[in-house]
Amino acid sequence: MTSAVPHLTTALNGPLLELESHLLERQADVECWLREQWLKTPAPFYASVDLRNSGFKLAPVDTNLFPAGFNNLNPAFMPLCVQAAQAAVERLCPKARRVLIIAENHTRNLFYMESVETLRDIFEKAGLEARIASLREDISETIQVELPSGKTCEISPLERQGNRVAIGDFSPCLVLLNNDMSAGRPAILEGLEQQLAPPLKAGWSTRKKSDHFTHYSMVAHAFAEQLDIDPWLVSPLTLQCGEVNFMERSGMECLARNVNTLLTAIQNKYDQYGIDREPFVVVKADSGTYGMGIMMVKSADELLNLNRKQRTKMSSAKEGLVVDNVLVQEGVYTFETLGEDQAVAEPVIYMMDHFVIGGFYRVHTGRGIDENLNAPGMHFEPLAFAQSCITPDKFDKPDAEPNRFYAYGVIARLALLAAARELA
Amino acid sequence: MTSAVPHLTTALNGPLLELESHLLERQADVECWLREQWLKTPAPFYASVDLRNSGFKLAPVDTNLFPAGFNNLNPAFMPLCVQAAQAAVERLCPKARRVLIIAENHTRNLFYMESVETLRDIFEKAGLEARIASLREDISETIQVELPSGKTCEISPLERQGNRVAIGDFSPCLVLLNNDMSAGRPAILEGLEQQLAPPLKAGWSTRKKSDHFTHYSMVAHAFAEQLDIDPWLVSPLTLQCGEVNFMERSGMECLARNVNTLLTAIQNKYDQYGIDREPFVVVKADSGTYGMGIMMVKSADELLNLNRKQRTKMSSAKEGLVVDNVLVQEGVYTFETLGEDQAVAEPVIYMMDHFVIGGFYRVHTGRGIDENLNAPGMHFEPLAFAQSCITPDKFDKPDAEPNRFYAYGVIARLALLAAARELA
Repeated sequence: MTSAVPHLTTALNGPLLELESHLLERQADVECWLREQWLKTPAPFYASVDLRNSGFKLAPVDTNLFPAGFNNLNPAFMPLCVQAAQAAVERLCPKARRVLIIAENHTRNLFYMESVETLRDIFEKAGLEARIASLREDISETIQVELPSGKTCEISPLERQGNRVAIGDFSPCLVLLNNDMSAGRPAILEGLEQQLAPPLKAGWSTRKKSDHFTHYSMVAHAFAEQLDIDPWLVSPLTLQCGEVNFMERSGMECLARNVNTLLTAIQNKYDQYGIDREPFVVVKADSGTYGMGIMMVKSADELLNLNRKQRTKMSSAKEGLVVDNVLVQEGVYTFETLGEDQAVAEPVIYMMDHFVIGGFYRVHTGRGIDENLNAPGMHFEPLAFAQSCITPDKFDKPDAEPNRFYAYGVIARLALLAAARELA
Repeated sequence: MTSAVPHLTTALNGPLLELESHLLERQADVECWLREQWLKTPAPFYASVDLRNSGFKLAPVDTNLFPAGFNNLNPAFMPLCVQAAQAAVERLCPKARRVLIIAENHTRNLFYMESVETLRDIFEKAGLEARIASLREDISETIQVELPSGKTCEISPLERQGNRVAIGDFSPCLVLLNNDMSAGRPAILEGLEQQLAPPLKAGWSTRKKSDHFTHYSMVAHAFAEQLDIDPWLVSPLTLQCGEVNFMERSGMECLARNVNTLLTAIQNKYDQYGIDREPFVVVKADSGTYGMGIMMVKSADELLNLNRKQRTKMSSAKEGLVVDNVLVQEGVYTFETLGEDQAVAEPVIYMMDHFVIGGFYRVHTGRGIDENLNAPGMHFEPLAFAQSCITPDKFDKPDAEPNRFYAYGVIARLALLAAARELA
């Protein structure tokens, strides 16, 4: 990890500079508007949001309600995480003494285990006894996992005890899901008397990206109206198709139509702002995560001419979810790059309750500016934000580091608000 | 400022080590208990607490509801202040867009002005427009004060407009008092429709230290019972006398009696813990601040033999308050010292809402371990805490820096809770 900061490698940053200036000038309105929104719709317990910064546009592309990657945050801002965790616990269940974190099933992914152990440590520092449990059936007793950082992560099998879940006599008040439940709602978690956060319906077996982006679009429009900006500057155009089967090539007409519609709409926006780039769209499964079933296309023909391998790839999402609803979304270029070899850098912002606690860049060297940085098997180097996202400096340039991070925090909170409304 | 840490120069630290260990071991109980208390009695908007650490005892000696010294906090933890300010504003008046800070009258004290400007900046970063007003009648237009840090602080005369106060057309939702109102409740602040924090009754013309320490004693007892510790380890023994007039030497019998009672009680505790030190008590005005009207005595005779100068000093408090109620309080040695010349270091802890946002040491070279470090004309060097008070490390020694700071944050919050109950 270095403390360098990615550079925007495009000169097409006029609209974004204007947006950043605007967010700074109208910061009191931004924060006041957000405070009012949280009173109406409480924020999810935590979330991470993947952003794309094209210089002319800053938009969320993915909102994760079961965030991993806490280990990639700047350790200097651990106190910020601890304080936000205290606020989150206080709002949800102030009497909690214990929290049980339910981890993802891929317990052999040591990077993930570093994250869940960091999360556990945040709660310990916040003053809760915190332990990690697994839903995996092949874990029948507590195991110790040695981590690359030198820490040890302890994972125990989750037990159902009446209307509660527990690890032996460790029976928590708060059960925190860090498992996105792609395989469906686990029976062991149904009908608990304990506080479960996020709720089961936040899992990918229920949640749809199209719902999220429908809410996001409304949030972005309301926000843009408050701030007198074009909502397109902060939101990707999105359409959806139902009943798509890539293997059987059914539903492809809808896809092709929507791809063309979007490409035209994007081109119109590019013309409006004088942006000399080729529009592209992202086609992805409406449910699921981990970048499976995602492709980038620059024309509808590409979709109609997929080979068998590509069609197979689009048909599978994590843990065997069959793709049928498909999202067609405006592709947002990533023009933030780092170092001499122009490694692409994608910001990820972390929030606990409605507080922005930090972020990092996914820095990837061998990948293009219009490609998905969160694809399966992808390797990235994390670059922790050197500064917080909540200390803007009005006397500095609008795109100076603290101000760029502030803008990231604002847009990430818009996505968080969309998720809050999705779960409401 | 250096990042060195004071050392405890006493070997008599057994009880405190035990206390620190205990706070760490029982951290979940500590935090849960505190959360429950804040639900019953919301914290004041902000506060600073002066602590004394004698190695065998850790206790608050002063709780300031109009804290100054924000400029002495570690700039690295500015995000923590910003986040806590957001939480405080959210609880008190979520729709606030503007905050007006009412400063102390000693606008020529540039160190104070640095503090109030830092406070203003915290609110600006938190997304509120923030300005500073003065109650001084000789300030009839906005003035700019150049600060040693290179910043400029703008102070404007406060105007009453109907049921509101404002600076011209800057009419805030939230009026934040940073003036302790020793001279009485300012008429201009009575009957406002705006949210005023802290309330007028928190001013020193109303507030009594004896009330605070009565509440503190109850808080400390309840806390100690929860944690199975001796409440004496975290609270100074306190008695009070009414109707004392040092000039006329009236009421001195009560004082002498209470001094003797306390000295005996302290000696008993010292005997119980095997502490080979001479007990001393602090005699101070029941109202007021700035270290006026404070003296340390080791026998009742010292009080009865005061010379005229000493009696005059004890008769005056800030802005001419006449001392009549007097507090007699167990003196707590300061055994934290820094550097080769054994400079005495006294920790001051800052809180916003119920969050501990940081602290610093008042480091004073020419002053004894049993003397008041906040006396008039006193010069101290601030030493910002290098770490936060909310990231304890259970795997480190109980008196390691993050753990000692955590203990400070716990005891400071007990004093904050006492202040909350005082104002309730």
